[in-house]
Amino acid sequence: MNEFSLIKHYFENLSPKRQDVLLSIGDDCALLQCPVDHVIAVSIDTLVEGIHFFADVPPETLGHKSLAVGLSDLAAMGAAPAWFTLALTLPEANENWLQNFSQGLAKLAQQHNIQLVGGDTTRGPLSISIQVHGFVKPEQALRRSGAKLGDMIYVTGSLGDAGVALQRRLNQWDDARLTDDDKAYFQQRLEQPSPRNDIGQALQEIASSAIDISDGLLADLGHILEKSNVGARLDLSKLPLSSAMAKISRQEAVQFALQSGDDYELCFTVPPQHFSIMEQQFQGQCTKIGMITDDDGLFYINESDELINLTEAGTGYDHFK
Amino acid sequence: MNEFSLIKHYFENLSPKRQDVLLSIGDDCALLQCPVDHVIAVSIDTLVEGIHFFADVPPETLGHKSLAVGLSDLAAMGAAPAWFTLALTLPEANENWLQNFSQGLAKLAQQHNIQLVGGDTTRGPLSISIQVHGFVKPEQALRRSGAKLGDMIYVTGSLGDAGVALQRRLNQWDDARLTDDDKAYFQQRLEQPSPRNDIGQALQEIASSAIDISDGLLADLGHILEKSNVGARLDLSKLPLSSAMAKISRQEAVQFALQSGDDYELCFTVPPQHFSIMEQQFQGQCTKIGMITDDDGLFYINESDELINLTEAGTGYDHFK
Repeated sequence: MNEFSLIKHYFENLSPKRQDVLLSIGDDCALLQCPVDHVIAVSIDTLVEGIHFFADVPPETLGHKSLAVGLSDLAAMGAAPAWFTLALTLPEANENWLQNFSQGLAKLAQQHNIQLVGGDTTRGPLSISIQVHGFVKPEQALRRSGAKLGDMIYVTGSLGDAGVALQRRLNQWDDARLTDDDKAYFQQRLEQPSPRNDIGQALQEIASSAIDISDGLLADLGHILEKSNVGARLDLSKLPLSSAMAKISRQEAVQFALQSGDDYELCFTVPPQHFSIMEQQFQGQCTKIGMITDDDGLFYINESDELINLTEAGTGYDHFK
Repeated sequence: MNEFSLIKHYFENLSPKRQDVLLSIGDDCALLQCPVDHVIAVSIDTLVEGIHFFADVPPETLGHKSLAVGLSDLAAMGAAPAWFTLALTLPEANENWLQNFSQGLAKLAQQHNIQLVGGDTTRGPLSISIQVHGFVKPEQALRRSGAKLGDMIYVTGSLGDAGVALQRRLNQWDDARLTDDDKAYFQQRLEQPSPRNDIGQALQEIASSAIDISDGLLADLGHILEKSNVGARLDLSKLPLSSAMAKISRQEAVQFALQSGDDYELCFTVPPQHFSIMEQQFQGQCTKIGMITDDDGLFYINESDELINLTEAGTGYDHFK
C-alpha cells in the first residue's frame, strides 16, 4: 500500500476548496488561515471497528458517520465548520472500500463546506480518527460551563432513536409494532446521524451552554451540570420521541431517550431573556425538557408528584465520575 | 475503561499552559487563538503497533516518538510549535503504561512549549494519532515546492542511524565493530528522534524549500524535486555519518544514509544569496550534500567520474510514484 497514491486518488479532490486553505494535502503541513476576531475550535474523535461500528457497516455510511461525529462537536460549540484531517488505518488498500468510504465523507463535507486538508494512511486494524476545525468568536462559543439557575433546558430533534437500532442489533431486542420503515429509520439514525450545525451556530447569542448528545442525555446533560455547578429538573413527559419510537412501550422509550447515546442531537440551556426567541425562531426544531435548578443533581417529578433523583436511579448520569 | 477519568488523570496537566489556549480539554472543542499575520500549520500522523513500533518498545520512548514525528513536520515547515491533540487507542487501561507514555510525551512537549489541548481515548488495538499545530507567517513557510536551479542541498545532523537500529532488530544484522555504546546510540536515534525545530524556524528566511526525512533521503528529497520540478546531484562523499556509522563498511553506511527512514532530520535547499549565512550560522549543524540542477532526476558522480542516476539504481527514490 502506498500512502501517497491512496490519499491522492481518493481524498485529494474529495471536498470543497476553501479560500482560507493556503496549502492542502501534499506538504509536511497544511497551512490554514483563521479569520480575524475568531478563534479555532478543534475536536478529534476515533471510531474503531468492533467498538464504535460493526464490521459489516457499509463504508459509505461509515464515511458519513466518521465526519458527523466531529461536526456535531463543532455544532455544540456554535462554531462554523472549516477544515478536517483524516488519520485512516486500514488492514488493506481495498479500492472499493476506499471509494465508498470517501464518497460518504465527501457528501457530508460538501453539505457543511468543510475541507479535507491533511491526513495519514497506515496499515493496521480498521480505525478512523478525524479532527475537525471550525471558527467562532470567543465570546460567542457555547461552553458547557455557562448554565445558570432559571435557564430552561432544550434538546434538538428526537432522542433515543440510535439506541433502539443498537439494541436491536446487539440483543436481538425487537418490538412487533415496528414496521420495516421504522426499523430502517432507527438504523439510519444510528449509522448516518445529522449533525445540528445550523442550529448550533444560530444559538451563538441565545444559549448559555451546550453539549452534543453522544453518550446519552443524562450523561451529557450531567457534564453541563458539573461544569456549570448547577442542578436540573426534567419533565419526562416532554422528551421528544420520533413517531417510530412512540410505538414502543412508554417506559422503554423514556429509557432510550434518557440513556442511549449516538443521537448527536444538541442539549443546551437558554436564559430567561431569550425564552421568547426560542418560542418564535426554533419552534419545531427544539423541545423544552426541563430547567436548571440549585438541586444537588438531576431530578424529575414522577406521577405521584415525588422528586426522583435520576443520578441515584443508576441511569448513566454518573458516567463522568 | 472511562475515557474522561483516563484523560483527566494522565493527560490534563501534562504539558505547558499557553496563553493562546482559551479552552483546553473538557468541552466539546478546544478554543485556540492564532496570532495575527500568522497561519496555522497542521499535520496528523498515526503510529500503529507492529507497523511503526515494536510491541516491546518502552512506553516512555513511544510517547516521545509519537510527538516527535509531528514536531518534525512543523520543523520542516519552519513553524513554531503551539498545540497538539492525541487520539489514543488502547487494548486496556494499563495505569503503568499510561503513566510512562504520558511522561515521555510531557517531557518533549515541555521542551518545545507545545500544549495538549484535546483528545479521544478508545479501546482497541494499540495505535496513536497525534495532530500538531504551529504558527508561521505564510510568506515564510518552508514548502517543498520552492527549490530552484543553483540552490545547494543541505541536511541536518547525521543520516541513516535509525535505519541501522531497525535492520539490527528486523534482520539480526550486525557488525562486529559496533560497541554496546554504538548500539545504544542507534537504538536511541530510532526510538527517540530529536526533531529539528530550532533549525527549522531559523531557516524561515534562508531556505527555499524543506522536508523532514521520514522515508529516507532519496525518497524525501525526491518529493522536493517533484514538487519543485527540478533535478539534483549529490556528492555521496559528503553525506554526514555519525561516528558509530563510520565504523561499518562505507558501502553499507551510504545505503543506510540514502535509503533508510525514521531519522527525522531536515533536508532543505538554499539559494546562492544565503550560502554565506549557511557557512557562518549553521556550521556544524548542517551539511551541504549536493545541488539543485536541471537534470531529469537525482544523480551522483561515481569514482570513475560517471553520472549515475539514483532513481534507476532502485534506491527508493520512486517511492511516491
